[in-house]
Amino acid sequence: MSMNSFGHLFRVTTWGESHGPALGATVDGCPPGVAIDEQMIQHWLDRRKPGQNKFTTQRREPDQVKILSGVFEGQTTGTPVQLMIENTDQRSKDYGDIIDKFRPGHADITYWQKYGIRDYRGGGRSSARETAARVAAGGLAREAIKQIAPNVQITGYMTQIGPHKIERERFDWSQIEQNPFWTPDAQAAKEWAIILDDLRKSGNSVGAVIEVVARGVPAGIGAPVYGKLDTDLAAAMMSINAVKGVEIGEGMAAAELTGVANADEIFMGQNGPQFSSNHAGGILGGISTGQDLVVRFAVKPTSSILTTRKTITKSGEETEIITKGRHDPCVGIRAVPVGEAMMACVILDHLLLHRGQIGENRGRIG
Amino acid sequence: MSMNSFGHLFRVTTWGESHGPALGATVDGCPPGVAIDEQMIQHWLDRRKPGQNKFTTQRREPDQVKILSGVFEGQTTGTPVQLMIENTDQRSKDYGDIIDKFRPGHADITYWQKYGIRDYRGGGRSSARETAARVAAGGLAREAIKQIAPNVQITGYMTQIGPHKIERERFDWSQIEQNPFWTPDAQAAKEWAIILDDLRKSGNSVGAVIEVVARGVPAGIGAPVYGKLDTDLAAAMMSINAVKGVEIGEGMAAAELTGVANADEIFMGQNGPQFSSNHAGGILGGISTGQDLVVRFAVKPTSSILTTRKTITKSGEETEIITKGRHDPCVGIRAVPVGEAMMACVILDHLLLHRGQIGENRGRIG
Amino acid sequence: MSMNSFGHLFRVTTWGESHGPALGATVDGCPPGVAIDEQMIQHWLDRRKPGQNKFTTQRREPDQVKILSGVFEGQTTGTPVQLMIENTDQRSKDYGDIIDKFRPGHADITYWQKYGIRDYRGGGRSSARETAARVAAGGLAREAIKQIAPNVQITGYMTQIGPHKIERERFDWSQIEQNPFWTPDAQAAKEWAIILDDLRKSGNSVGAVIEVVARGVPAGIGAPVYGKLDTDLAAAMMSINAVKGVEIGEGMAAAELTGVANADEIFMGQNGPQFSSNHAGGILGGISTGQDLVVRFAVKPTSSILTTRKTITKSGEETEIITKGRHDPCVGIRAVPVGEAMMACVILDHLLLHRGQIGENRGRIG
Amino acid sequence: MSMNSFGHLFRVTTWGESHGPALGATVDGCPPGVAIDEQMIQHWLDRRKPGQNKFTTQRREPDQVKILSGVFEGQTTGTPVQLMIENTDQRSKDYGDIIDKFRPGHADITYWQKYGIRDYRGGGRSSARETAARVAAGGLAREAIKQIAPNVQITGYMTQIGPHKIERERFDWSQIEQNPFWTPDAQAAKEWAIILDDLRKSGNSVGAVIEVVARGVPAGIGAPVYGKLDTDLAAAMMSINAVKGVEIGEGMAAAELTGVANADEIFMGQNGPQFSSNHAGGILGGISTGQDLVVRFAVKPTSSILTTRKTITKSGEETEIITKGRHDPCVGIRAVPVGEAMMACVILDHLLLHRGQIGENRGRIG
Repeated sequence: MSMNSFGHLFRVTTWGESHGPALGATVDGCPPGVAIDEQMIQHWLDRRKPGQNKFTTQRREPDQVKILSGVFEGQTTGTPVQLMIENTDQRSKDYGDIIDKFRPGHADITYWQKYGIRDYRGGGRSSARETAARVAAGGLAREAIKQIAPNVQITGYMTQIGPHKIERERFDWSQIEQNPFWTPDAQAAKEWAIILDDLRKSGNSVGAVIEVVARGVPAGIGAPVYGKLDTDLAAAMMSINAVKGVEIGEGMAAAELTGVANADEIFMGQNGPQFSSNHAGGILGGISTGQDLVVRFAVKPTSSILTTRKTITKSGEETEIITKGRHDPCVGIRAVPVGEAMMACVILDHLLLHRGQIGENRGRIG
Repeated sequence: MSMNSFGHLFRVTTWGESHGPALGATVDGCPPGVAIDEQMIQHWLDRRKPGQNKFTTQRREPDQVKILSGVFEGQTTGTPVQLMIENTDQRSKDYGDIIDKFRPGHADITYWQKYGIRDYRGGGRSSARETAARVAAGGLAREAIKQIAPNVQITGYMTQIGPHKIERERFDWSQIEQNPFWTPDAQAAKEWAIILDDLRKSGNSVGAVIEVVARGVPAGIGAPVYGKLDTDLAAAMMSINAVKGVEIGEGMAAAELTGVANADEIFMGQNGPQFSSNHAGGILGGISTGQDLVVRFAVKPTSSILTTRKTITKSGEETEIITKGRHDPCVGIRAVPVGEAMMACVILDHLLLHRGQIGENRGRIG
Repeated sequence: MSMNSFGHLFRVTTWGESHGPALGATVDGCPPGVAIDEQMIQHWLDRRKPGQNKFTTQRREPDQVKILSGVFEGQTTGTPVQLMIENTDQRSKDYGDIIDKFRPGHADITYWQKYGIRDYRGGGRSSARETAARVAAGGLAREAIKQIAPNVQITGYMTQIGPHKIERERFDWSQIEQNPFWTPDAQAAKEWAIILDDLRKSGNSVGAVIEVVARGVPAGIGAPVYGKLDTDLAAAMMSINAVKGVEIGEGMAAAELTGVANADEIFMGQNGPQFSSNHAGGILGGISTGQDLVVRFAVKPTSSILTTRKTITKSGEETEIITKGRHDPCVGIRAVPVGEAMMACVILDHLLLHRGQIGENRGRIG
Repeated sequence: MSMNSFGHLFRVTTWGESHGPALGATVDGCPPGVAIDEQMIQHWLDRRKPGQNKFTTQRREPDQVKILSGVFEGQTTGTPVQLMIENTDQRSKDYGDIIDKFRPGHADITYWQKYGIRDYRGGGRSSARETAARVAAGGLAREAIKQIAPNVQITGYMTQIGPHKIERERFDWSQIEQNPFWTPDAQAAKEWAIILDDLRKSGNSVGAVIEVVARGVPAGIGAPVYGKLDTDLAAAMMSINAVKGVEIGEGMAAAELTGVANADEIFMGQNGPQFSSNHAGGILGGISTGQDLVVRFAVKPTSSILTTRKTITKSGEETEIITKGRHDPCVGIRAVPVGEAMMACVILDHLLLHRGQIGENRGRIG
């Protein structure tokens, strides 16, 4: 019942602080015989890495992953896989105000109130650096999925920065890898670049919405009533730093629909059931329909900003704080590969769970 | 690793189908010495009960709870509490079309595809009747919370039906118990009554948004990074039937804020830290701040409607279906006590977890 | 993380006290499509039922199981199965001394010290009546195993009562069902009958050793290093009331062997590897070898005896107690079907776990 | 539900192979504010380290622990503690026969049959090197226990090598640290030295029995009916490499007692209840009595021996194998600190669980 773990059969425990010697993921339950090496995992880490462009923090973190266990002669052995990322720059430096003052919007105050001790160096355990471990685990999960459900394709992208949303009519899958925002709307990418430039210069930040879609997921994975696929996806995404909302399919907008409009009518296609629409986001009753899994989450604006904010100290004195240093004007950008990784972990976990309880057989239609 | 369980230390496993002999909740980990009896739990079940007014289904389900274990001489003993609700009307009747056809928007098709067998009587395990068991468990959780954190107050209410939202300026706590929608906006209640009447007559349905607030929650409960308080709340709410989106504090709207606007500035109050605002919804880094916990979720429109929809049969033939019978035009109404129950279970669970890892001491400010 | 649950994927939570309205098992994770009805489960319960012969307690407990959920039209649906046994005789009666005095060897004192409240009626939760729920769950597990590994045969029997052990040379499988002790040694059965008769008359009791063997278990189930098959079997057996020791294969006697003597040499048989001996009890490194699984456990003598013993009261006064009533002179007899049930649950659980992580393929030899 | 994890609230996941880059323990749920550093953990690792005397393997493994996370300024922070031990000698060498042949008594054949892939270098994941990670975690647990139950003292020792048992009359706690066998019987230590010398020279090995006692454990920890203290101890000990039997208190010998003899009578001492004897081993109904916790386990003889044994190859051919190299004639010796570590982890876990469910209050006597 580790508080720092997720997954049922494919179980990931992350550990480490932003400025300790290292951080990583202990991954248990991976199927054996999955071809994997450090380069394959590094590929996904490099996408999340800061400093990729001027819209993410300019701190240099090589984020080089090492596989310490569970892989032999290029294949997983079925035993725990330890994925470690050493923190290269952990020199003791002047943390200044942060030692005694609580930064608004950060977990400084709650960690202190809970534990009575706080690793104040760069956020410690609450730092978004922890998500590097998730991305590494997600890279492994993607390879394992290929063994079981080779048609699964997981893609994340931004659909909104601040109040600025993409136009769904301009949605183009091929654009996602062409701009620094991983957005399928090329025109939005251009506009957002200007907006973020302004925010960065003014020392302000902004929130974002990320959508992650999984195509090719077989029907039938998930379970009632608390191990639901949507429950686990909601938990997976909400566990990412700074996320404040999670949606499946229509999400919050489902409230605005009528039953007639919301019904995804069912037809018979060549390869099984097909649907007139996907308001459900690929999940009914906690179980996948075979349609695209569609998950969306909102990331709040970076709390580290260059504007003075009021706060208190550990001894209860009122004061002010300003968070200097290089920070992402929109942490949402780097949340895209993290959301993909969580989606991969959840899908693999439920593929294994389904196989465990039910095996290869399932209900056929037609 | 039961798929039908939730909670870590206060662990609830629900069981039962809508038309089987009974359903219930097996609750393990409840603290001993909690004064409880069937009437105290029945109080909460009666709020969820159908047929309370014309806006909920007119089926008569007495939903009478029995305590079968774990309570002795009016107090919990610390051993598993079994809360059973017998299904009084489980006569074999004509289920007609439902036996072979999959109702759009329901879990009929996914249960079939997963299990290859389906209890077609009223939705079986996927029926919203399962939430009665959660409400019963929540009633117990509320009493246990009183022992540990007596100031906690949990209140749910509707903030939106279809596209019609409440006006926050008209928010009045005392109104919540005064109308069939549990809404704090008396004027909205009047308008919604007309809207739902029309929907009911036309055999259509509509979605809703429910907000659940917990006041008086002590600072410091929750945990990084996957056992976060917000992660568990998101999972708890998303696990409720028909929920498609979950928000903490600002929720999806957090995407639209700037870092300057989003910062909840901190001051020193008479009883500890106070905040200028609560964009965070009472949680920072997965741990409670002591502010109100604010969770919101969207419920999709009832899928059982009186309009013909296209679908297929188990043998793959295309056909049509219409769902007759008495149904809620807005299942969101009855989701209010369910959301409250899940909030109670999560808070109790995290109070116990905190006490387990850390004891009574925690970091003090000032 | 329910304390009253066992199993990973096939997860059994038992609930109920000896003198409450009912007790039972909530079983989650059972594969769908398992043919089951109440009679099939009752068959196993009847074996454990008291009053079967003069060597077990003469209390009449019909122990009639009801299936309340998870079964539809004679098959499991894959959703939680609730197995309930009503306590037919729960009239309030005079519990006399037991209310205030702690019976030596019973859990009276520890329940009080832990919880500060104690259901003193017949042991409450600590009563061996709880094992009826396990036997019911085990009956379901046996049927589910047939789907996956149809050659599995689980048989428990007594090998020792007090200091009196069976002679292995007289071991005869066909005798097990022929005597009240489920022992494969017909001559031992005769001798034990006399010994137990004497003990019963003198109001004393005696311990026993039970051995449970599973034949036909496929090689490869289990896991390193804490989810080992032997670890789970040890936990399963030690969790049974009054058990004080658990052995796999050679058990404690393994200490006396040399490496040369202990080596189970490997040969190639017609259907795969064969071994010269089975000191290992069918498990190497936590994983099954395909040999017979051999588990043994010791049950302490019944603590309820007709001899006066010294004890204290809740208020700390020294006093004496004698436990009247009808009791088993050797609870070990009724532990045989319980041990079989736990074996069945563990094997099914590991069959599902193996299928989940690895699927149908595994390493082949030859 | 990690197969490589143990513990409920104090949750330890071990990872790593004998000849990979490193191995370690990911420890979640440790209370914050525990003073700890690498030297304190190293102290316990050094006790387990091979090459300490001529009766343990002469391989040189420095087993130097590094704390990678969860500790800040000399104290635990309440977040995951990563304890890593690098494998210093992992040069590729000639593994000869082992690549294709299965060593009798080892997990070679079962890992192959389960996973279809096997890290043949020194046993891989099934190597007893994994227990170094447990000892490290146990070192941390010991320090955390001091915060909560400062009187707890955990001591392991050998009571039997081969058929040679200690004399209980010669039991002397002060002798345990004075001989290479950690035995409280000085004379047995002398005799065992001669016996083991002979075994080592003849290339044979022998089993052993280890007893671990915890004094000063408060009454009331543990739980019914599957999270029992004895259940968790049995699982903890059985999970150690080569263990084949586990006993609590009287253990298997409980079978030989009568109810009159077995009753631990209760008296009132100055500090609460006292008992006339401790047949129960400190546990009644799964909950601690306040008496000494007494656990015993048998370790089978080292399977790596210098005598030729018959076996098969991966392709199913019959052949012979002899395991060269330096090995422990009695692995039981090095199991003593491992048993202590597991005892420490289980006790801490149950202290936290108890505090979680029940808090500081419990039932008082007198």
